[in-house]
Amino acid sequence: MKKKSLPLSRVYRLLEPGPVVLLTTADKGRPNVMTMSWHTMMEFEPPLVGCVISDRNHSFGVLKATRECVINIPTLELAAQVVGCGNSSGRKLDKFRRFGLTPVAAACVKAPLIDECYAALECKVADTTLVAKYCFFILEVLQAWIDPSAKDPRTIHHRGRGAFMVAGKTIKLPSKKN
Amino acid sequence: MKKKSLPLSRVYRLLEPGPVVLLTTADKGRPNVMTMSWHTMMEFEPPLVGCVISDRNHSFGVLKATRECVINIPTLELAAQVVGCGNSSGRKLDKFRRFGLTPVAAACVKAPLIDECYAALECKVADTTLVAKYCFFILEVLQAWIDPSAKDPRTIHHRGRGAFMVAGKTIKLPSKKN
Repeated sequence: MKKKSLPLSRVYRLLEPGPVVLLTTADKGRPNVMTMSWHTMMEFEPPLVGCVISDRNHSFGVLKATRECVINIPTLELAAQVVGCGNSSGRKLDKFRRFGLTPVAAACVKAPLIDECYAALECKVADTTLVAKYCFFILEVLQAWIDPSAKDPRTIHHRGRGAFMVAGKTIKLPSKKN
Repeated sequence: MKKKSLPLSRVYRLLEPGPVVLLTTADKGRPNVMTMSWHTMMEFEPPLVGCVISDRNHSFGVLKATRECVINIPTLELAAQVVGCGNSSGRKLDKFRRFGLTPVAAACVKAPLIDECYAALECKVADTTLVAKYCFFILEVLQAWIDPSAKDPRTIHHRGRGAFMVAGKTIKLPSKKN
Protein backbone atom coordinates (compact mmCIF):
# COMPACT_ATOMS: atom_id res chain seq x y z
CA MET A 1 0.00 0.00 0.00
CA LYS A 2 1.29 3.43 -0.99
CA LYS A 3 -0.65 5.26 1.72
CA LYS A 4 0.98 6.79 4.81
CA SER A 5 -0.63 7.77 8.09
CA LEU A 6 -2.15 11.28 8.16
CA PRO A 7 -2.50 13.29 11.41
CA LEU A 8 -6.12 13.28 12.52
CA SER A 9 -6.06 17.07 12.79
CA ARG A 10 -5.83 17.25 8.98
CA VAL A 11 -8.74 14.98 8.14
CA TYR A 12 -11.11 17.91 7.60
CA ARG A 13 -9.04 19.03 4.63
CA LEU A 14 -10.03 15.85 2.81
CA LEU A 15 -13.76 15.98 3.45
CA GLU A 16 -14.62 19.70 3.49
CA PRO A 17 -14.38 20.03 -0.30
CA GLY A 18 -17.29 17.59 -0.60
CA PRO A 19 -15.88 14.67 -2.60
CA VAL A 20 -17.91 11.62 -3.47
CA VAL A 21 -16.59 8.83 -1.25
CA LEU A 22 -16.70 5.04 -1.22
CA LEU A 23 -17.80 3.68 2.14
CA THR A 24 -16.67 0.15 2.92
CA THR A 25 -18.04 -2.23 5.53
CA ALA A 26 -17.44 -5.88 6.40
CA ASP A 27 -20.17 -8.35 7.25
CA LYS A 28 -18.62 -11.43 8.87
CA GLY A 29 -15.56 -11.13 6.65
CA ARG A 30 -17.52 -10.21 3.52
CA PRO A 31 -16.53 -6.72 2.36
CA ASN A 32 -18.95 -4.34 0.69
CA VAL A 33 -18.74 -0.84 -0.72
CA MET A 34 -21.26 1.93 -1.39
CA THR A 35 -21.07 5.38 -2.96
CA MET A 36 -21.88 8.35 -0.75
CA SER A 37 -22.05 12.13 -1.13
CA TRP A 38 -24.09 13.14 1.92
CA HIS A 39 -21.41 13.72 4.52
CA THR A 40 -20.03 16.60 6.57
CA MET A 41 -17.27 17.25 9.05
CA MET A 42 -18.63 17.80 12.57
CA GLU A 43 -15.50 18.16 14.71
CA PHE A 44 -11.79 18.68 14.04
CA GLU A 45 -10.11 16.35 16.52
CA PRO A 46 -10.90 13.64 17.11
CA PRO A 47 -12.50 14.06 13.70
CA LEU A 48 -16.23 13.45 13.61
CA VAL A 49 -18.04 12.91 10.32
CA GLY A 50 -21.81 12.97 9.97
CA CYS A 51 -23.29 11.05 7.05
CA VAL A 52 -26.60 9.83 5.71
CA ILE A 53 -26.77 6.18 4.68
CA SER A 54 -30.21 5.26 3.44
CA ASP A 55 -31.83 2.26 5.08
CA ARG A 56 -32.49 0.98 1.56
CA ASN A 57 -28.73 0.38 1.25
CA HIS A 58 -27.27 -2.98 2.26
CA SER A 59 -24.52 -1.06 4.10
CA PHE A 60 -27.05 0.50 6.47
CA GLY A 61 -27.73 -2.74 8.33
CA VAL A 62 -24.10 -3.82 8.29
CA LEU A 63 -22.90 -0.49 9.66
CA LYS A 64 -25.58 -0.49 12.32
CA ALA A 65 -24.58 -3.99 13.42
CA THR A 66 -20.78 -3.79 13.14
CA ARG A 67 -20.38 -0.07 13.97
CA GLU A 68 -17.28 0.10 11.77
CA CYS A 69 -16.53 1.39 8.27
CA VAL A 70 -13.89 3.04 6.12
CA ILE A 71 -14.43 6.23 4.12
CA ASN A 72 -12.31 5.93 0.97
CA ILE A 73 -11.78 8.93 -1.31
CA PRO A 74 -11.56 8.21 -5.04
CA THR A 75 -10.35 10.44 -7.85
CA LEU A 76 -11.40 10.88 -11.47
CA GLU A 77 -9.76 7.65 -12.64
CA LEU A 78 -12.32 5.72 -10.57
CA ALA A 79 -15.41 7.60 -11.80
CA ALA A 80 -16.91 4.60 -13.61
CA GLN A 81 -16.46 2.40 -10.54
CA VAL A 82 -17.96 5.08 -8.30
CA VAL A 83 -21.11 5.20 -10.42
CA GLY A 84 -21.16 1.41 -10.69
CA CYS A 85 -21.00 1.01 -6.92
CA GLY A 86 -23.77 3.59 -6.59
CA ASN A 87 -26.05 1.85 -9.05
CA SER A 88 -25.77 -1.67 -7.61
CA SER A 89 -26.46 -3.39 -4.30
CA GLY A 90 -24.01 -5.47 -2.30
CA ARG A 91 -26.83 -7.65 -1.04
CA LYS A 92 -25.89 -10.33 -3.56
CA LEU A 93 -23.09 -8.78 -5.65
CA ASP A 94 -19.39 -8.79 -4.70
CA LYS A 95 -18.71 -5.22 -5.76
CA PHE A 96 -14.97 -5.45 -5.11
CA ARG A 97 -14.71 -8.24 -7.67
CA ARG A 98 -17.26 -6.73 -10.06
CA PHE A 99 -15.57 -3.32 -10.19
CA GLY A 100 -11.95 -4.41 -9.85
CA LEU A 101 -11.36 -2.78 -6.47
CA THR A 102 -8.64 -4.13 -4.17
CA PRO A 103 -9.45 -4.54 -0.47
CA VAL A 104 -6.55 -3.89 1.91
CA ALA A 105 -6.66 -4.71 5.62
CA ALA A 106 -7.26 -1.70 7.84
CA ALA A 107 -5.42 -1.10 11.12
CA CYS A 108 -8.29 -0.45 13.54
CA VAL A 109 -11.45 -1.82 11.91
CA LYS A 110 -12.56 -4.94 10.06
CA ALA A 111 -13.83 -3.03 7.01
CA PRO A 112 -11.21 -2.81 4.27
CA LEU A 113 -9.42 0.13 2.72
CA ILE A 114 -9.71 0.40 -1.06
CA ASP A 115 -6.19 0.35 -2.47
CA GLU A 116 -7.13 2.37 -5.57
CA CYS A 117 -8.35 5.36 -3.51
CA TYR A 118 -5.82 8.06 -2.61
CA ALA A 119 -7.07 8.47 0.98
CA ALA A 120 -8.93 6.39 3.55
CA LEU A 121 -10.43 7.09 6.97
CA GLU A 122 -11.00 4.22 9.37
CA CYS A 123 -14.12 4.99 11.40
CA LYS A 124 -16.26 3.73 14.22
CA VAL A 125 -19.86 4.75 14.82
CA ALA A 126 -19.83 7.38 17.58
CA ASP A 127 -23.47 8.48 17.79
CA THR A 128 -26.71 6.95 16.49
CA THR A 129 -29.16 9.50 17.92
CA LEU A 130 -30.48 10.50 14.48
CA VAL A 131 -30.23 7.12 12.73
CA ALA A 132 -33.86 6.15 13.27
CA LYS A 133 -35.26 9.46 12.03
CA TYR A 134 -32.79 10.53 9.31
CA CYS A 135 -30.45 7.52 8.75
CA PHE A 136 -27.76 9.93 9.99
CA PHE A 137 -24.67 8.33 11.54
CA ILE A 138 -21.93 10.22 13.34
CA LEU A 139 -18.58 8.53 12.75
CA GLU A 140 -15.32 9.06 14.62
CA VAL A 141 -12.18 8.78 12.51
CA LEU A 142 -9.71 6.51 14.31
CA GLN A 143 -6.94 6.39 11.72
CA ALA A 144 -6.40 8.31 8.50
CA TRP A 145 -4.32 7.32 5.50
CA ILE A 146 -3.19 9.28 2.48
CA ASP A 147 -1.05 8.66 -0.57
CA PRO A 148 1.68 11.29 -0.06
CA SER A 149 2.22 11.56 -3.81
CA ALA A 150 -1.37 12.83 -4.33
CA LYS A 151 -1.11 16.59 -4.93
CA ASP A 152 -4.31 18.47 -5.72
CA PRO A 153 -6.24 15.21 -6.08
CA ARG A 154 -8.86 15.29 -8.84
CA THR A 155 -11.74 14.30 -6.60
CA ILE A 156 -15.21 14.10 -8.14
CA HIS A 157 -18.26 15.89 -6.78
CA HIS A 158 -21.79 14.82 -7.56
CA ARG A 159 -24.11 17.33 -9.22
CA GLY A 160 -27.00 14.90 -9.67
CA ARG A 161 -28.09 12.30 -12.21
CA GLY A 162 -24.62 11.16 -13.20
CA ALA A 163 -23.11 14.64 -13.55
CA PHE A 164 -19.91 15.16 -11.59
CA MET A 165 -17.80 18.24 -11.12
CA VAL A 166 -14.11 17.39 -11.28
CA ALA A 167 -11.88 19.21 -8.80
CA GLY A 168 -10.01 22.01 -10.56
CA LYS A 169 -7.01 24.04 -9.51
CA THR A 170 -6.27 25.02 -5.92
CA ILE A 171 -5.96 28.68 -4.96
CA LYS A 172 -4.49 30.07 -1.75
CA LEU A 173 -5.92 33.03 0.11
CA PRO A 174 -4.74 34.62 3.34
CA SER A 175 -6.76 33.08 6.16
CA LYS A 176 -6.43 33.39 9.91
CA LYS A 177 -8.39 30.23 10.52
CA ASN A 178 -8.54 26.53 9.74
CA MET B 1 -32.41 40.20 -8.78
CA LYS B 2 -31.35 37.85 -11.56
CA LYS B 3 -32.30 34.71 -9.67
CA LYS B 4 -35.30 32.54 -10.55
CA SER B 5 -37.11 29.99 -8.42
CA LEU B 6 -35.60 26.48 -8.46
CA PRO B 7 -37.71 23.35 -7.80
CA LEU B 8 -36.96 22.04 -4.32
CA SER B 9 -36.29 18.58 -5.75
CA ARG B 10 -33.11 19.96 -7.37
CA VAL B 11 -31.59 21.59 -4.30
CA TYR B 12 -29.31 18.59 -3.63
CA ARG B 13 -27.49 19.27 -6.89
CA LEU B 14 -26.26 22.56 -5.45
CA LEU B 15 -25.02 21.29 -2.11
CA GLU B 16 -23.76 17.75 -2.80
CA PRO B 17 -20.57 18.98 -4.48
CA GLY B 18 -19.52 20.56 -1.17
CA PRO B 19 -19.20 24.29 -1.93
CA VAL B 20 -18.26 26.84 0.67
CA VAL B 21 -21.45 28.78 1.43
CA LEU B 22 -22.35 32.10 3.01
CA LEU B 23 -25.04 31.73 5.65
CA THR B 24 -27.08 34.84 6.36
CA THR B 25 -29.24 35.60 9.37
CA ALA B 26 -31.15 38.65 10.59
CA ASP B 27 -31.20 39.84 14.17
CA LYS B 28 -34.04 42.33 14.65
CA GLY B 29 -33.52 43.68 11.13
CA ARG B 30 -29.72 43.60 11.33
CA PRO B 31 -28.35 41.19 8.71
CA ASN B 32 -25.21 39.14 9.26
CA VAL B 33 -23.25 36.62 7.21
CA MET B 34 -20.85 33.81 8.04
CA THR B 35 -18.75 31.42 5.96
CA MET B 36 -19.52 27.71 6.28
CA SER B 37 -18.21 24.45 4.84
CA TRP B 38 -19.60 21.87 7.25
CA HIS B 39 -22.93 21.01 5.66
CA THR B 40 -24.60 17.99 4.10
CA MET B 41 -27.84 17.13 2.38
CA MET B 42 -30.06 14.93 4.57
CA GLU B 43 -33.26 14.56 2.52
CA PHE B 44 -34.29 15.27 -1.07
CA GLU B 45 -37.76 16.78 -0.71
CA PRO B 46 -38.54 18.75 1.22
CA PRO B 47 -34.79 19.33 1.22
CA LEU B 48 -33.12 18.98 4.59
CA VAL B 49 -29.62 20.30 5.16
CA GLY B 50 -27.54 19.45 8.22
CA CYS B 51 -24.84 21.94 9.20
CA VAL B 52 -22.46 22.73 12.01
CA ILE B 53 -22.39 26.34 13.22
CA SER B 54 -19.95 26.80 16.06
CA ASP B 55 -21.32 28.40 19.19
CA ARG B 56 -18.34 30.77 19.00
CA ASN B 57 -19.98 32.33 15.92
CA HIS B 58 -22.34 35.27 16.35
CA SER B 59 -24.70 33.54 13.91
CA PHE B 60 -25.17 30.60 16.30
CA GLY B 61 -27.21 32.60 18.80
CA VAL B 62 -29.14 34.45 16.12
CA LEU B 63 -30.05 31.25 14.28
CA LYS B 64 -31.07 29.56 17.52
CA ALA B 65 -33.32 32.49 18.42
CA THR B 66 -34.81 33.36 15.02
CA ARG B 67 -34.79 29.82 13.51
CA GLU B 68 -34.33 31.30 10.03
CA CYS B 69 -31.40 31.69 7.65
CA VAL B 70 -30.39 31.72 4.01
CA ILE B 71 -27.66 29.52 2.51
CA ASN B 72 -26.05 31.53 -0.30
CA ILE B 73 -23.64 29.89 -2.72
CA PRO B 74 -20.74 32.04 -3.95
CA THR B 75 -18.38 31.45 -6.85
CA LEU B 76 -14.69 32.19 -7.42
CA GLU B 77 -15.26 35.93 -7.98
CA LEU B 78 -16.31 36.21 -4.31
CA ALA B 79 -13.35 34.28 -2.85
CA ALA B 80 -11.85 37.27 -1.04
CA GLN B 81 -15.20 38.14 0.52
CA VAL B 82 -15.74 34.51 1.55
CA VAL B 83 -12.44 34.46 3.43
CA GLY B 84 -13.10 37.92 4.84
CA CYS B 85 -16.49 36.85 6.20
CA GLY B 86 -14.85 33.73 7.67
CA ASN B 87 -12.12 35.70 9.42
CA SER B 88 -14.33 38.32 11.06
CA SER B 89 -17.24 38.39 13.48
CA GLY B 90 -20.59 40.05 12.93
CA ARG B 91 -20.89 40.81 16.62
CA LYS B 92 -19.81 44.41 15.97
CA LEU B 93 -18.97 44.52 12.26
CA ASP B 94 -21.50 45.08 9.46
CA LYS B 95 -20.06 42.48 7.10
CA PHE B 96 -22.41 43.36 4.24
CA ARG B 97 -21.05 46.90 4.20
CA ARG B 98 -17.46 45.87 4.94
CA PHE B 99 -17.30 43.30 2.13
CA GLY B 100 -19.54 45.03 -0.40
CA LEU B 101 -22.29 42.41 -0.34
CA THR B 102 -25.84 43.38 -1.31
CA PRO B 103 -28.72 42.10 0.85
CA VAL B 104 -31.94 41.31 -1.02
CA ALA B 105 -35.23 40.58 0.71
CA ALA B 106 -36.11 36.89 0.83
CA ALA B 107 -39.61 35.53 0.19
CA CYS B 108 -40.16 33.30 3.25
CA VAL B 109 -37.63 34.38 5.89
CA LYS B 110 -36.31 37.60 7.39
CA ALA B 111 -32.65 36.77 6.65
CA PRO B 112 -31.51 38.29 3.34
CA LEU B 113 -30.30 36.72 0.12
CA ILE B 114 -26.88 37.88 -1.07
CA ASP B 115 -27.35 39.33 -4.53
CA GLU B 116 -23.78 38.52 -5.62
CA CYS B 117 -24.23 34.75 -5.02
CA TYR B 118 -25.51 32.63 -7.90
CA ALA B 119 -27.88 30.57 -5.73
CA ALA B 120 -29.71 30.96 -2.43
CA LEU B 121 -31.74 28.63 -0.22
CA GLU B 122 -34.22 30.11 2.24
CA CYS B 123 -34.30 27.87 5.31
CA LYS B 124 -36.02 27.38 8.62
CA VAL B 125 -34.58 25.34 11.48
CA ALA B 126 -36.30 21.95 11.44
CA ASP B 127 -34.52 19.99 14.18
CA THR B 128 -32.27 21.07 17.05
CA THR B 129 -31.71 17.65 18.66
CA LEU B 130 -27.94 17.77 18.16
CA VAL B 131 -27.39 21.51 18.64
CA ALA B 132 -26.38 21.28 22.30
CA LYS B 133 -23.87 18.48 21.75
CA TYR B 134 -22.47 19.20 18.27
CA CYS B 135 -23.80 22.65 17.26
CA PHE B 136 -25.53 20.69 14.49
CA PHE B 137 -28.67 22.26 13.03
CA ILE B 138 -31.04 20.56 10.60
CA LEU B 139 -32.51 23.11 8.20
CA GLU B 140 -35.47 22.72 5.88
CA VAL B 141 -35.23 24.55 2.58
CA LEU B 142 -38.46 26.48 2.02
CA GLN B 143 -37.58 28.26 -1.21
CA ALA B 144 -34.63 27.93 -3.57
CA TRP B 145 -33.29 30.50 -6.02
CA ILE B 146 -30.78 30.21 -8.81
CA ASP B 147 -29.33 32.49 -11.48
CA PRO B 148 -30.41 30.62 -14.63
CA SER B 149 -27.41 31.97 -16.53
CA ALA B 150 -24.98 30.18 -14.17
CA LYS B 151 -23.68 27.14 -16.06
CA ASP B 152 -21.04 24.97 -14.37
CA PRO B 153 -20.64 27.53 -11.58
CA ARG B 154 -17.07 27.89 -10.37
CA THR B 155 -17.84 27.18 -6.73
CA ILE B 156 -14.97 27.12 -4.24
CA HIS B 157 -14.28 24.24 -1.88
CA HIS B 158 -12.22 24.65 1.26
CA ARG B 159 -9.11 22.49 1.65
CA GLY B 160 -7.96 24.11 4.89
CA ARG B 161 -5.92 27.14 5.94
CA GLY B 162 -6.98 29.39 3.10
CA ALA B 163 -6.55 26.82 0.33
CA PHE B 164 -9.58 26.38 -1.89
CA MET B 165 -10.20 23.96 -4.72
CA VAL B 166 -12.01 25.69 -7.58
CA ALA B 167 -14.72 23.65 -9.30
CA GLY B 168 -13.41 22.31 -12.60
CA LYS B 169 -15.22 20.82 -15.57
CA THR B 170 -18.38 18.74 -15.31
CA ILE B 171 -18.44 15.19 -16.66
CA LYS B 172 -21.50 13.06 -17.32
CA LEU B 173 -21.68 9.35 -16.58
CA PRO B 174 -24.58 6.96 -17.08
CA SER B 175 -26.42 6.75 -13.76
CA LYS B 176 -29.68 5.08 -12.85
CA LYS B 177 -30.07 7.15 -9.71
CA ASN B 178 -30.25 10.71 -8.44
